[in-house]
Amino acid sequence: MKSTTSRHTTSPITAFGRTLDPALQSWVPSANLPDTDFPIQNLPFGVFKNKQHAASYRCGIAIGDQILDLAALMERNLLTGTTAELRAAVAQDSLNALMALGPEAGRSLRIQLSGILEAGAAHQAAVRDCLVPQAEAQMALPARIGDFSDFYASLDHATNVGKQFRPDNPVLPNFKWLPVAYHGRASSIRPSGHPVYRPNGQKMKAGAARPEFGPSERLDYEAEIGFLVGSGNPLGHAVGIDDAEKHVFGLCILNDWSARDIQSWEYQPLGPFLAKSFMSTLSPWVVTLDALEPFRSGWQRGRQDPPLLEHLSAAWLGERGAIDVRLQVSLQSRKMHEQRMDPMALSTSLLRDSYWTVAQIMAHHTSNGCNLQPGDLLGSGTVSGPSQDTLACLLEQTQGGKHPITLPTGETRLFLEDGDTVIMKAWCEAEGRRRLGFGECRGTIMAAPARI
Amino acid sequence: MKSTTSRHTTSPITAFGRTLDPALQSWVPSANLPDTDFPIQNLPFGVFKNKQHAASYRCGIAIGDQILDLAALMERNLLTGTTAELRAAVAQDSLNALMALGPEAGRSLRIQLSGILEAGAAHQAAVRDCLVPQAEAQMALPARIGDFSDFYASLDHATNVGKQFRPDNPVLPNFKWLPVAYHGRASSIRPSGHPVYRPNGQKMKAGAARPEFGPSERLDYEAEIGFLVGSGNPLGHAVGIDDAEKHVFGLCILNDWSARDIQSWEYQPLGPFLAKSFMSTLSPWVVTLDALEPFRSGWQRGRQDPPLLEHLSAAWLGERGAIDVRLQVSLQSRKMHEQRMDPMALSTSLLRDSYWTVAQIMAHHTSNGCNLQPGDLLGSGTVSGPSQDTLACLLEQTQGGKHPITLPTGETRLFLEDGDTVIMKAWCEAEGRRRLGFGECRGTIMAAPARI
Repeated sequence: MKSTTSRHTTSPITAFGRTLDPALQSWVPSANLPDTDFPIQNLPFGVFKNKQHAASYRCGIAIGDQILDLAALMERNLLTGTTAELRAAVAQDSLNALMALGPEAGRSLRIQLSGILEAGAAHQAAVRDCLVPQAEAQMALPARIGDFSDFYASLDHATNVGKQFRPDNPVLPNFKWLPVAYHGRASSIRPSGHPVYRPNGQKMKAGAARPEFGPSERLDYEAEIGFLVGSGNPLGHAVGIDDAEKHVFGLCILNDWSARDIQSWEYQPLGPFLAKSFMSTLSPWVVTLDALEPFRSGWQRGRQDPPLLEHLSAAWLGERGAIDVRLQVSLQSRKMHEQRMDPMALSTSLLRDSYWTVAQIMAHHTSNGCNLQPGDLLGSGTVSGPSQDTLACLLEQTQGGKHPITLPTGETRLFLEDGDTVIMKAWCEAEGRRRLGFGECRGTIMAAPARI
Repeated sequence: MKSTTSRHTTSPITAFGRTLDPALQSWVPSANLPDTDFPIQNLPFGVFKNKQHAASYRCGIAIGDQILDLAALMERNLLTGTTAELRAAVAQDSLNALMALGPEAGRSLRIQLSGILEAGAAHQAAVRDCLVPQAEAQMALPARIGDFSDFYASLDHATNVGKQFRPDNPVLPNFKWLPVAYHGRASSIRPSGHPVYRPNGQKMKAGAARPEFGPSERLDYEAEIGFLVGSGNPLGHAVGIDDAEKHVFGLCILNDWSARDIQSWEYQPLGPFLAKSFMSTLSPWVVTLDALEPFRSGWQRGRQDPPLLEHLSAAWLGERGAIDVRLQVSLQSRKMHEQRMDPMALSTSLLRDSYWTVAQIMAHHTSNGCNLQPGDLLGSGTVSGPSQDTLACLLEQTQGGKHPITLPTGETRLFLEDGDTVIMKAWCEAEGRRRLGFGECRGTIMAAPARI
């Protein structure tokens, strides 16, 4: 075991590898439990406040069932190895400034925090004063999100949903040539736990002569992975595919709530708008690409037809273009909650099954010179796979609202009812590696607001 | 003539009416010239810096060929009638804080500034020290734009463009039931004068077996009016149509540059993305709804079929739902510039010809509970009319790139060439009213950046 001081003499690359060592233990006991999402190998970043610091949000990292308060750590001179720039960034009320510093800054901070939290580290008593129980904290969005772009990276999802909206033509010819996307609404993204009001909107029912306005009757979730941008790129400067991942700070869970009846009526020719903009939910902990390093995986589509254009191709994608994140969706109805029944798992899908990788998404997004900014959110699109238990929205699960799901109470669902809670979890696991998790992304459906 | 002091004894409503009096003159001589965009009846808000104040942007209003520096006015205690809240808002480096205060605050400020600038006002020597020549100022975007939503309010534009993309089905069934829109890119909006780099992108040429990547060959402009949001609405709280205009701070000119070849290949099923996100240009002066009061006009579509659903209907729309803004597009090629030839006018179209009004756009946008924030930008969509000289993009002007335009040099254009400058102007004029203008929204096309 090394002290925090001696860690500064280790080379960054060696130290980076060491932070991922599955044998590494923390002196925070809850971080060593086998089922924790937040072992010392994870160290995701987030923004919180608690009773003691209620005035403004602070940056922290999750360790076991605790949060290490980074501002408190600095106030006690326990992060002295960092640069002044890094300390100033970490003292903000969002992660944007830290994200802007780029991957080396984040990595150096991660290495230091790993040294501070590992079993046998120096200054444990002082650092313990900087821990806040997660159960007593209120989490904010990790960043001020300037723009939110939502992709459509799963071929299975595109095929299944395409069949509902365009039975004759489910997957359009551009799908295999470029990662299709649209801009979503940034202002209405909320952190996990925020109530979800059923939206009102215009719907055109099958066979009706005219649309009607009222609460959505086909309210759905979409389980996605969100990629948060680290350092940005200037307007007019595309990011090449080999550099693309340097601009990714980390990953969260994203629920892109969708009102299918509003969507099918409004979406042509300019895409979804009010069907999505009423709210999206983001999990509060950002798992860094560094933490995900042991879970890199080959990109399955590398040898598929058609061969990609140059700006979306790279040999390394076939070896490590994908990330093996598992994404699980569970549902708990109000009745299940009242009867203290556990949520029912509906799907577990794999991010690595996506047709497009995060590097391709980033390279494509900037290929026209569009500037991304620190804290921008890129959604993967619904992460669905080929089998029923990998379908990551109800539109797919119920085949367009035709085949109901039966809950353990005997209730059935085609779409979400008021009082339903949707819980998304994500995690990584691999032989010989420490399992790590993303926390959760949760929302409960509330009745639609009264009409004006 | 009244002094600034005596103005405070006038009732706000009376004073508001008086600020629009076409006989009102300013002691700033250039504001009284007949062709100025910025007479004392206009007083649009903007954000500027100059040599004297180079460190940060400041809020100002345009008067003739000058800018009245609002921070300087406050430093000299010349805005003492305002509230502390208003003074703090005006001291910011963007208009967001002023916008957030709502229409009464903006109106009271406008009334005071009108009193300060009118002929015969007191303290002219002191106020003169707060004037900055527009020619020496650099303008910024008027606000930090959180979200940018672009509508599609012109039936003529929807029909003309629809014919290019969907010859059999130009106007989709939802068009007359709701104002169709999509989210645009906020990060790449730039003020008038910023260079416009031709985007690279994927294009699928007619008859080709596979797409190619390279500079857009069908680069276009779209002349729009941008509506800037004033006070926002909380998430989950729709804004009713009768209250909608209270949330509009003012109007600008917006050029929604569009790469048609990228657009036609990428836009299905989720709408335009990289075809638009490379840049949009906004004019720097925000003309308030108060200044536009004399140019309100009846909404022409009020009696059309189909009758609208309740949340988009109001009797007053037929009397004053529209605003009579004229929007002109001119083009100057590099050769025309070198030969000192004036730009050639391509179109002049009328905002009041739109199928949808700003109140309907705002009510629709929030009808699902989506929150708008101060400084958000809502685009009208391309403001086209029924005749050739009212077609506000080249896709319409050249009927999809088939019928070239001939410039005075003998050059022809189907789409924009490198070195072309597009200049958009907008103004209001009416019998017995002082003409007022929006300034200009200008951009010159630069060669596409080299590929990575």
